[in-house]
Amino acid sequence: MIRFASLDDLRAACQALPRGDDAAATAVRQRQTTLTKPPGSLGMLEALAEWLARWQGRAMPRLERVDILVFAGNHGVTARGVSAYPSAVTRQMVANFAAGGAAINQLARVAAAELRVIPLALETPTADFTEAPAMDEAAFVAAVSAGAAAVAEGTDLLCLGEMGIGNTTAAAAVAAGLFGGDGERWAGRGTGNDDAGMQRKRAAIDAALARHAAVLADPLALAAALGGRELAAILGAVLAARQGGVPVLLDGFVCTAAAAPLAVLASGALDHAWLAHVSAEPGHRMLAERLRLRPLLDLGMRLGEGSGAALAVPLLRAALACHQGMATFGEAGVSEKA
Amino acid sequence: MIRFASLDDLRAACQALPRGDDAAATAVRQRQTTLTKPPGSLGMLEALAEWLARWQGRAMPRLERVDILVFAGNHGVTARGVSAYPSAVTRQMVANFAAGGAAINQLARVAAAELRVIPLALETPTADFTEAPAMDEAAFVAAVSAGAAAVAEGTDLLCLGEMGIGNTTAAAAVAAGLFGGDGERWAGRGTGNDDAGMQRKRAAIDAALARHAAVLADPLALAAALGGRELAAILGAVLAARQGGVPVLLDGFVCTAAAAPLAVLASGALDHAWLAHVSAEPGHRMLAERLRLRPLLDLGMRLGEGSGAALAVPLLRAALACHQGMATFGEAGVSEKA
Repeated sequence: MIRFASLDDLRAACQALPRGDDAAATAVRQRQTTLTKPPGSLGMLEALAEWLARWQGRAMPRLERVDILVFAGNHGVTARGVSAYPSAVTRQMVANFAAGGAAINQLARVAAAELRVIPLALETPTADFTEAPAMDEAAFVAAVSAGAAAVAEGTDLLCLGEMGIGNTTAAAAVAAGLFGGDGERWAGRGTGNDDAGMQRKRAAIDAALARHAAVLADPLALAAALGGRELAAILGAVLAARQGGVPVLLDGFVCTAAAAPLAVLASGALDHAWLAHVSAEPGHRMLAERLRLRPLLDLGMRLGEGSGAALAVPLLRAALACHQGMATFGEAGVSEKA
Repeated sequence: MIRFASLDDLRAACQALPRGDDAAATAVRQRQTTLTKPPGSLGMLEALAEWLARWQGRAMPRLERVDILVFAGNHGVTARGVSAYPSAVTRQMVANFAAGGAAINQLARVAAAELRVIPLALETPTADFTEAPAMDEAAFVAAVSAGAAAVAEGTDLLCLGEMGIGNTTAAAAVAAGLFGGDGERWAGRGTGNDDAGMQRKRAAIDAALARHAAVLADPLALAAALGGRELAAILGAVLAARQGGVPVLLDGFVCTAAAAPLAVLASGALDHAWLAHVSAEPGHRMLAERLRLRPLLDLGMRLGEGSGAALAVPLLRAALACHQGMATFGEAGVSEKA
């Protein structure tokens, strides 16, 4: 189990990321050429099989244990009227997850994945980041560690998601802090903000960027000041997955913004993560482009909860089913290309 | 069981298509507004649930029986050297399907769908369409009827696919015949043609368009002259599905070209069909745009066999799982939008 003692400890871990397994990836590529299909004709399915092999370190990758982790947090900035829903909904939705009534419960079943929901100090929202850092160092490191600790040994694929009223405001602030631009550029309607709510959301982001200008050059300090507990936990889970040989499916805007500081800290830090779905939240597409993440799905969803990640799991199962189950030209007696 | 006695009989059927069930679609839309998620946040999943309801005619649609039909045919135009593979591969791949070794076998398993492969007179290729119509009226109507007859009663969703060395040449000719343009515009590399093969392929298409110019204004005569048995069977299956209340997932370029004459004959004729995947074969994207078909997936595949359609089935299962399984705001005690 991975825990971080301090921000410096965490920073050091981000600079010492394991590389992928080239030999496993090469083995997959070689087998692909022997299977009964025109070379390359399975497109992204072939790339996914290779990617799973590289980051699982297995020439024949597997998806026996797929975990979906949904981290939940509350945000002090909701006092600024940035969301269409009251912040009590975070806890209500956690109860809905527990009762099996949310979208992610249904999607986890279709994905044959195990869903775990991890509420993070919901009774203690982060500070209103227009007035102070959302989290101090201790709170940030604790949330990152909680995320890292949630990655179970033996996981073959990790899907990450979140729930937290107000967290698209945090995500937009993080994206703006890392890549430039302001609330106007990065804020979207989230769960369905009206125009007045959008004005408040943009203003809150701009105020936070101004207040925390001094830490924007430090991706981890930025994540503490502008993020939230569930975002920090996602960052920790992405890091622990890299250390543990677990490929990751990232979900929407909040999830991607949560992982983004890693990519800014260390080039290639998200190579073991694939973006499952690009959200209808407009900041997400821009952020994905900045991070050079290519989404598997583009279905106009904007729910969070890990819904996009869960939805992509069957594509990965399909990729492996083809890779493992198809006959070779030799086995099937099919003529190869002239 | 639907059979067509003649081209005129078929033409009449194309002009008498049943409409969808508006009441079932409305019921789905109304239920969506009560579920514990921001309105519209499941994007395309909500549209899919509504579409299944409309064309199944069920307020609570189901996916208990999903059939994948793969039609196989041989093409006289292969004598012109238009494909990278010998035409013997059509029969070899049909054997590979039967033995469970092809991509579609694995994808059908992941989709929990039943796969049926229907070879159509493989020992008698269609005529070389640069010299004569690919099929005469009797052969065309027989292939359309075979496709229609393959749609089983009680099917909840039909995935269509094909196998036939040389059939991207036929598909490109059909697309060009219906929508204008030539071999240069519509021909792609298919299973992996080299430059010389591409030149032969484009020339064959141009020769066929010139030879059959007189019938291009009649979509069914065009399909007989430029298509192939597996394309005709797909057309018949799409038509029978409409008549039987079965929504359809279309696969790649060949499958879409096979169905396209219906859309030209009768506006809205493909409303019960959703394009599952847009192929890497460049003509497919153009054709999908012409037909206003919006693909669910864009994963760079170009295999045929119904592979893209099968891959999209879990998305539809996910759409229905959410629609059926999610709690309402009232049931879950979650606060609605402020």
